[in-house]
Amino acid sequence: MTVIVRPARPGEEGDIVRLIRALAIYEHEPDAVKISEEALRGHLFNDHPRIFAHVAEAEGRVVGIAVWFLNFSTWTGKHGLYLEDLFVEPEMRGAGVARALFKALAEEAKARDCPRIDWAVLDWNELGKGLYRKLGAWHNAEWEPWRLDGAALKALQD
Amino acid sequence: MTVIVRPARPGEEGDIVRLIRALAIYEHEPDAVKISEEALRGHLFNDHPRIFAHVAEAEGRVVGIAVWFLNFSTWTGKHGLYLEDLFVEPEMRGAGVARALFKALAEEAKARDCPRIDWAVLDWNELGKGLYRKLGAWHNAEWEPWRLDGAALKALQD
Repeated sequence: MTVIVRPARPGEEGDIVRLIRALAIYEHEPDAVKISEEALRGHLFNDHPRIFAHVAEAEGRVVGIAVWFLNFSTWTGKHGLYLEDLFVEPEMRGAGVARALFKALAEEAKARDCPRIDWAVLDWNELGKGLYRKLGAWHNAEWEPWRLDGAALKALQD
Repeated sequence: MTVIVRPARPGEEGDIVRLIRALAIYEHEPDAVKISEEALRGHLFNDHPRIFAHVAEAEGRVVGIAVWFLNFSTWTGKHGLYLEDLFVEPEMRGAGVARALFKALAEEAKARDCPRIDWAVLDWNELGKGLYRKLGAWHNAEWEPWRLDGAALKALQD
């Protein structure tokens, strides 16, 4: 089986949203996905995109996705790649699709002079973490993710 | 004492880098800051900036900074604000400067239809966490930050 990884093209928003949903189901959050194909299209395909997607294609079908954007480090003074979503269809696992997606992202990082790829994984997701460890990635455990949203965010806006 | 929070202006890169360095010292990483004023200027002040800064001014001096960029959620389909660095000079603490910076970011979030502000804090930084709790922020503990960099990243690029 040949797997091709390449930047997503206009018209593939449906496949991407399908796999975003499949990932959310895997993450036990089936109702979390509010994004529409139209909104995704507007974000991905414009003159100055702030988000990007790669797809993995096998036998003419999209079987995996990586959705990412550029973050920034005030220490390095450089952008990094932030991987928001990575997903490979369950029936396609074990064939190197996720690794091929990471390889494409690593090449994007090189082309953009980004010294890091960062992402977040659910603490119970040992399947994901096993793959990440094989790639040589590490859990940046001393930094805690914090969030302000909902009523607390609104309170600051009044 | 009057504190004014506003977007940073060209010419303030020196103040911003000074406070980025002060934050790195507070975080026990005094040698981590490689960013130059020139690089920061290029990132902040161009036609399509990917990073942004607010400054807090008191008595005609920059005494606090917030450096941020836009992240993206495939669940909400919206950008969020990611706060990369927040710092207030030690002698200015307790006067509401950090809160005023958060308020300005909350207003930016509203203007840009961003439902969240996210950031990371070092696990031992109770001073920071105390402030964040007062604002109603929360530790998004189930998501672990992971990173691919250095030799492991290079290995994927060959």
